[in-house]
Amino acid sequence: MDLMAEKEPILSSFLYASILAHDCLEQALAFVLANRLQNPTLLATQLMDIFSNVMMHDRDIQRSIRLDVQAFIDRDPSCLSYSSALLYLKGYHSLQSYRVAHALWKQGRNVLALALQSRISEVFGVDIHPAAKIGDGILLDHGTGVVIGETAVVGNRVSLMHGVTLGGTGKETGDRHPKVGDLALLGACVTVLGNIKIGEGAMIAAGSLVLKHVPPHSMVAGTPAQVIGSIDEQDPSLTMNHDATKEFFKHLAVSFRDGRSK
Amino acid sequence: MDLMAEKEPILSSFLYASILAHDCLEQALAFVLANRLQNPTLLATQLMDIFSNVMMHDRDIQRSIRLDVQAFIDRDPSCLSYSSALLYLKGYHSLQSYRVAHALWKQGRNVLALALQSRISEVFGVDIHPAAKIGDGILLDHGTGVVIGETAVVGNRVSLMHGVTLGGTGKETGDRHPKVGDLALLGACVTVLGNIKIGEGAMIAAGSLVLKHVPPHSMVAGTPAQVIGSIDEQDPSLTMNHDATKEFFKHLAVSFRDGRSK
Amino acid sequence: MDLMAEKEPILSSFLYASILAHDCLEQALAFVLANRLQNPTLLATQLMDIFSNVMMHDRDIQRSIRLDVQAFIDRDPSCLSYSSALLYLKGYHSLQSYRVAHALWKQGRNVLALALQSRISEVFGVDIHPAAKIGDGILLDHGTGVVIGETAVVGNRVSLMHGVTLGGTGKETGDRHPKVGDLALLGACVTVLGNIKIGEGAMIAAGSLVLKHVPPHSMVAGTPAQVIGSIDEQDPSLTMNHDATKEFFKHLAVSFRDGRSK
Amino acid sequence: MDLMAEKEPILSSFLYASILAHDCLEQALAFVLANRLQNPTLLATQLMDIFSNVMMHDRDIQRSIRLDVQAFIDRDPSCLSYSSALLYLKGYHSLQSYRVAHALWKQGRNVLALALQSRISEVFGVDIHPAAKIGDGILLDHGTGVVIGETAVVGNRVSLMHGVTLGGTGKETGDRHPKVGDLALLGACVTVLGNIKIGEGAMIAAGSLVLKHVPPHSMVAGTPAQVIGSIDEQDPSLTMNHDATKEFFKHLAVSFRDGRSK
Amino acid sequence: MDLMAEKEPILSSFLYASILAHDCLEQALAFVLANRLQNPTLLATQLMDIFSNVMMHDRDIQRSIRLDVQAFIDRDPSCLSYSSALLYLKGYHSLQSYRVAHALWKQGRNVLALALQSRISEVFGVDIHPAAKIGDGILLDHGTGVVIGETAVVGNRVSLMHGVTLGGTGKETGDRHPKVGDLALLGACVTVLGNIKIGEGAMIAAGSLVLKHVPPHSMVAGTPAQVIGSIDEQDPSLTMNHDATKEFFKHLAVSFRDGRSK
Amino acid sequence: MDLMAEKEPILSSFLYASILAHDCLEQALAFVLANRLQNPTLLATQLMDIFSNVMMHDRDIQRSIRLDVQAFIDRDPSCLSYSSALLYLKGYHSLQSYRVAHALWKQGRNVLALALQSRISEVFGVDIHPAAKIGDGILLDHGTGVVIGETAVVGNRVSLMHGVTLGGTGKETGDRHPKVGDLALLGACVTVLGNIKIGEGAMIAAGSLVLKHVPPHSMVAGTPAQVIGSIDEQDPSLTMNHDATKEFFKHLAVSFRDGRSK
Repeated sequence: MDLMAEKEPILSSFLYASILAHDCLEQALAFVLANRLQNPTLLATQLMDIFSNVMMHDRDIQRSIRLDVQAFIDRDPSCLSYSSALLYLKGYHSLQSYRVAHALWKQGRNVLALALQSRISEVFGVDIHPAAKIGDGILLDHGTGVVIGETAVVGNRVSLMHGVTLGGTGKETGDRHPKVGDLALLGACVTVLGNIKIGEGAMIAAGSLVLKHVPPHSMVAGTPAQVIGSIDEQDPSLTMNHDATKEFFKHLAVSFRDGRSK
Repeated sequence: MDLMAEKEPILSSFLYASILAHDCLEQALAFVLANRLQNPTLLATQLMDIFSNVMMHDRDIQRSIRLDVQAFIDRDPSCLSYSSALLYLKGYHSLQSYRVAHALWKQGRNVLALALQSRISEVFGVDIHPAAKIGDGILLDHGTGVVIGETAVVGNRVSLMHGVTLGGTGKETGDRHPKVGDLALLGACVTVLGNIKIGEGAMIAAGSLVLKHVPPHSMVAGTPAQVIGSIDEQDPSLTMNHDATKEFFKHLAVSFRDGRSK
Repeated sequence: MDLMAEKEPILSSFLYASILAHDCLEQALAFVLANRLQNPTLLATQLMDIFSNVMMHDRDIQRSIRLDVQAFIDRDPSCLSYSSALLYLKGYHSLQSYRVAHALWKQGRNVLALALQSRISEVFGVDIHPAAKIGDGILLDHGTGVVIGETAVVGNRVSLMHGVTLGGTGKETGDRHPKVGDLALLGACVTVLGNIKIGEGAMIAAGSLVLKHVPPHSMVAGTPAQVIGSIDEQDPSLTMNHDATKEFFKHLAVSFRDGRSK
Repeated sequence: MDLMAEKEPILSSFLYASILAHDCLEQALAFVLANRLQNPTLLATQLMDIFSNVMMHDRDIQRSIRLDVQAFIDRDPSCLSYSSALLYLKGYHSLQSYRVAHALWKQGRNVLALALQSRISEVFGVDIHPAAKIGDGILLDHGTGVVIGETAVVGNRVSLMHGVTLGGTGKETGDRHPKVGDLALLGACVTVLGNIKIGEGAMIAAGSLVLKHVPPHSMVAGTPAQVIGSIDEQDPSLTMNHDATKEFFKHLAVSFRDGRSK
Repeated sequence: MDLMAEKEPILSSFLYASILAHDCLEQALAFVLANRLQNPTLLATQLMDIFSNVMMHDRDIQRSIRLDVQAFIDRDPSCLSYSSALLYLKGYHSLQSYRVAHALWKQGRNVLALALQSRISEVFGVDIHPAAKIGDGILLDHGTGVVIGETAVVGNRVSLMHGVTLGGTGKETGDRHPKVGDLALLGACVTVLGNIKIGEGAMIAAGSLVLKHVPPHSMVAGTPAQVIGSIDEQDPSLTMNHDATKEFFKHLAVSFRDGRSK
Repeated sequence: MDLMAEKEPILSSFLYASILAHDCLEQALAFVLANRLQNPTLLATQLMDIFSNVMMHDRDIQRSIRLDVQAFIDRDPSCLSYSSALLYLKGYHSLQSYRVAHALWKQGRNVLALALQSRISEVFGVDIHPAAKIGDGILLDHGTGVVIGETAVVGNRVSLMHGVTLGGTGKETGDRHPKVGDLALLGACVTVLGNIKIGEGAMIAAGSLVLKHVPPHSMVAGTPAQVIGSIDEQDPSLTMNHDATKEFFKHLAVSFRDGRSK
C-alpha cells in the first residue's frame, strides 16, 4: 500500500483514506463502498454509518469479507493484491454491499435493504435480492449483468462469472430460485432458472441455459444444458478451469455429437 | 408509504419527497428519475422540468406509466408495492425514462432525446433508441444489458427479461429491427436480430438467438432458435412461465433431440 | 454542431464546452470523458489533466480516436454524426478511456490504470483490462457487458457488439486470453475463452461460445461454436452483416442440421 | 436574454434553463435559487418544489419579487438588466430566499424555515431570521454580512447596504429588534440595536452605530449615531445619495465639530 | 427531535441521520460538520473520520462542545433548542470546526489544520487561525465576518457577535494578537488590534475599534474605543445587554460628550 | 511541498494535483480556483479551461499572480509559504479570480465576467466588480466582506484588510468609486465612498469611514475619517503597522482630542 501510494501520488490520498487510515478491514471497506454507492438521496456519510455499524457487529460478514477477498486472490490471476480487490474490484464491491443489504433484511429493515439493492444494481450492474442467501469464499468476477433472485441459495467457495442469472420462473411467490452447491463453478453468462439444484462441485460451461437439476461433480453445457462429463478434481470453482483447455473442448465436442446422434 | 417512512427514518425524507409531497404520479416519477439521471451536464432541476413537462401533457405516457407499474405488480413476485416499483426498480425507471426520450424524439428534439438515451444507458445499463416504439403494460425486469434498436417495435403487455437484445443487422439504415407482438415473453439474454416478427403471445426461451419469424403462440428456444411447441395459455407474458417447469424442460429436451435427429 | 446547439438550448453550453471551445479532438474528448468518469475520488479536473496529457503526447492514441470515430460513422447506422459519437456513445467513450488506461499501464502507472479500469467498468459496464492490446478502427457497439481480459489482443477494424467476452481460463497467470484477427466481427453476447485465435475476417454469430481456433474468413455459430460456412466478402466487420439476412439464417439452419446428423 | 445567450455560449444553457424555459418569473427564480442553495441534505429538486409551491400560491411574494427586482434596476447603477438581477445578484437572491422562508414560517413550518435561514447564511453570508417582516421594493445591495433579527420590521422601498445589522439586545425574548420605516436608507456596515424606530425616509451614514430612535427624514451618523441634519428629498432610499457628496461631507464634519464643542 | 421530524418530513431523514442515529453528541456533530464542510477535495467521509477521531478522544473538546451549546441556549433568545444549535447555527458550527482544527494543530498536523481553516472561512465566513486559543462556553453569534488571529487568546464564557476581529498589527511574527478575558462581551463589528488585554467581564460596544488595554468590568465604545463606564453586573457576556437599553445609550452619549469636551 | 505531502497523506493527492502535477503556476492556480468556484452551473472542467486560457495568454495576470503571492509572503506573518497562499488563502484566491473576470470583461465577455463575480462573492464573500482596476502586489487579507465597485481603481502594492468597502454614492452611473494610490494601507472594515482619492502611501485606520480625499502619506482615522498625522515610512502597506502599536494609539488619542477641542 505504501508503495502504491508513493508510486501514484494522484491516488495516494484515496489509498490512504481508504486503507491506511483505518484500524480494520471493516472500516476501510465501509469507506470505499460508501463513496462508490453514494448518490443525492443516500449520503456517503449515512452509508458509511450504515455499513460500518453492520460490519462491526456481524461476525458472519466479518468472516465473509475475508474469505471472499482470499477467493479473488486465489482464483483471479489478474488480482494481484488484497488492496486492489478492496479498492477496485466491482465484483467484490457488489458482493460485500449485498452482504450488508442481506444483514439489514434479516433485521427487518426491508425498505433500506431494497434501496441498497437498487443502488447496487445501478452502480455495479449486479442485481442481488437482499433475501438471497450466499455463502463464504465467493468469487464474483467482473460482475456486470449478474442477477440473483429472492429465494436463491449459493453455497460456499462458489465461483460466479459475469452475466450469471439465478432466476425464478412464473409469477407465483414462494421458493422459486436455484440452489447452488458448494464449490460449483458457473461460467460467463450462464442462466439457471427455477427451483433446481446445482450439485456440489458441478461445472456449468459459459453461456449455458440450465433448466433441471445438475448432479454433483458433473460438467454441463448447452442451451438447454446437458451433462457432458464428470469432474475429476474436487473443486472446479477453485481451479477455475471453467472454460477451454483443449481437452475440455474436445470433451465438449464429442459429448455433444454423441448426445445428439443417439 | 407512511408505514415505510415510519419504519425506515433514513429514507423517510426521500420517500416523502418522492411520493407524498406530490399531487400526482407524474410529478413523483419526474422527481425520482431526475435525481437518478442527473449528472454534471444534466442538472436534476433541468431534468425535473423536462420530465414533468412531458409527462403532464402527454396522455399516452400517463396511461403507460400506470399500466407499466401494474405490470410489475402483476408479474414480478418480488415487487410488493406500487411505491417500491416507483422508487427502486431499475427496469421500470429505464422504461419510463425511455418514454420521455421517445416523446422528445417525436417532438423533433432529437439531440436531447439522444442525450437522455446515452445517460439512461450509463445509469441503468439499458440502451433503448428513442425512436423505438414500445407499447403499454410492459414488464422490463432488472433491465441490465437490454438493447433495443431504432426501428424496433414492441406491442402491448410484453415481458422482457434482462439482457434482451432487439438488434439490427448490417449497416444499412432503414427498417432493420424486430417487431414484437402483444403478450410475447422474451426470456433472459434472448437476442433477436433483424426485421423479423415475434408473433403475438409467443414465448422465447432464455438465451435464445432468434433470426427468423416466430409464429404467434409458439414456444421457441435454442441458438439459432427453433419452434419447440405451442402455448395453450393465451398470454405467456402474463403468466411468466417463461422458464423451467418440469413439463417445459421435458418438452424442450424432446423437441431438441427430435429436431436434431431427423 | 452549431445547428445542434441552436436547436437544443438546454444542451448548447455542454455542446459548446465539449466541442466548439476546444482546438482539437483530443481536448474535446478529454473534457467529455473527464465529466463522465469523475467521482468523489477522481476529480473531473484531475481526469481532464490526465486524459489531456496522455492524448496530446501519444501519436497512437491520436490516430486511434480518429479511426474509431470513423468506424462508428461507417458501421453504426444510428450514428449520424461525428459529434454524436463524441458526445454520447458509451461504446466509443469506454474504448477511448481504455486507450488512456492502456497508455498509463505502458508507462508503468499501473495503479492509476487499474483505478481507471474500475471506474470505466462502473460507469459504462465495460471491463477492459488496461494491459489488453486493441487495434485501430474498432466499433464497440453499445458496450454494456463487454469483458476483455489482461492478455487479450484485438486487431484492427474489428467490430465488437455488446456483451462480448474475451475471457481467460483457469487460474494460472500468463498468456491466457483470445487473440482476435483484423476485420473480425463478434456478434452480441459472444463468449470467447482461452488463448485461441479468431482468424482474420471471421464472423462469430451472436450468442456463440467459442472455445477453439476459428479459421480466417469463416462463419462460426453455436454453443460451442462450430464453423458453418465461409465469408465471401473480405471484411464482415465493415459490412456488419453479422446477423440475420434470410440467406444467413437458412445457411445457419442447414449447417447445424447437417453438422449434427453426420 | 437571447443576446446574452448568443454572446456567451458557455452560459447559454444556464440562461435558457433559468429564464427562457420557464413561463413565469416565479418558476425561473425557483430554478435559480434551488441550484444556488442546494447541498447534500437539501436536494435541488426538493428546493425547487418548495420554492415553486410557495411562490406560485403567495400573492405577496409574487408582488415582492417584482418590486424588488425593480428596486435593483432603479437604484443600483451597476445592475443593467432584469435578467442580471435574477441570475447573479446575491442580495436579490438572499432576499427572495428569505421571503420563502418567511412564508413557510407563517405556515408553521418553522423547522424548514430555520433550515433555509441556515443555508442562506452559509451561501450568501446574509442572516435574516424567517420571522422578521420585510416590505416590498427593497434593495439589499451586495448582501455580505447582513444580519436581521427575529422581531425586526423593515418597511417598503428601503435600501440596505452590505454589512447592515438590525440586532437585538439582551437575552430576553420578545420584541427586541429595530423597526425601519419606509424609504429609509441604511449605509454600509450600519449597526442598529434594540427595539428602536428608524423614521420614515431617514438616512443612516455608513458605519454608524444606532442605539436610539431616529426621526423621520433625518440624517444620522457616527458611533453612536447622532442627528446631523435633515433630508430635503422625500426618499433617500431611492436617490441613494447615502454617502459622500461634498456637501454631505461638509455637513457631517460641521455637525460633528459643533455637536461636540458645545 | 422526534416532534421536529414528524412535523417536517422533508427534513426528517436529515434530523434522524444527524442526531437520532448516533449514540453521542460527538458522532452527531461530526456527521453534521462533515456534510457542511465537504468539497471535492475534502470528502465528507474523510471529514467524518477526522472529526470523529478527534472528538472521541479529546476530553477538552467534549467539554467545550457541551458548554458552547449551552451558551447558545442561555444567551441567544432565538435559539430554542439544543438540536437547532447543533443542526443549524453557523456560529456554533464554525466554532466546533475550529476546535477540531486547533486539536490537529496541537498534534502537529498543521497542513490539515490550515486546510480546515481555509474551508471554514469559505463555508461560514469565519476565519479563525487554528493556533488561536479559545476557552469554553463561547457564544459566537451569526459568525459572518469574524477574524481571529494566530496568537489570540479568548477566555471562558465570552460572547462574540458577528464581525468581530481580533487582529494583529505589523508584519512581525510573534505574539501579536489580543487576549480576551473571561466573561467579556464583544459587540457586533468590534475590531480589536494588537497584543492588548480585554479585561475580564469587560463590555465592548458594537462597532468599536479597540487599540489599547481595556480594564476588567469596564464598558468601552467608539473608534478608537474609550472607557465610558463600568459594569455592575459580573458577567456582561451572559446577560448580553451589549447594546442599547435607554440607560446605556444615555450613558454613552454623556460619556462621549464629556470625554471630548474636556 | 513534498514535505507537506509526506506529512499529511489525507491531502497529498490534492497537493500533488494542485501543484506538483503542473508545469507552471498558472496551471496550478487554474486547477485550484476551478475546484473552489465550481457549482452545478459552472463545471470545474469549464472553469479550468477558462482560467487556464486567460492566464496562459495574459502577461499582466502572469506578473500579478506572482507579485501578489509575494505580497502575502512579505506582509502576512501567518503565511509561511508560497504553496499555502496558493492552496488555502481566500484573499489570494478571490483576488486572482477577480483578475480573470477582469480580463474577460476587457475582452467584452461581460456576461461571463459577471457570472464569475457572482460566484466569487458567494464562495469567498468578496464582491469585486470585474470592471474595477486593481494593480500588482496586492495583499487582500482574509477577504470576507470586501466590496469594490465598478469604477474603483487600486494602485500597486496596496494592502486591503477584510471588510474594506470601496463604494459608490448615488444612483447615477459614471465614475463614482474611490481611487486608491500606490502603497496605501486600508485597515479592517474601512469604508471609502465616492469618487475620492486615497493618496499614495496613506494609512486608513481600521473601522474608518472615508468620505473625502486623503493626502499622500497621511494617517486618517474615525467616522468620518480625519487626518491624524503623517507617515514617516514610505510604505505603510508594506510594514503593515496599520493598527495599534502603543505609539500609534497615543497618536490617535491625542489627534482626536486635539482635533475636536479646537
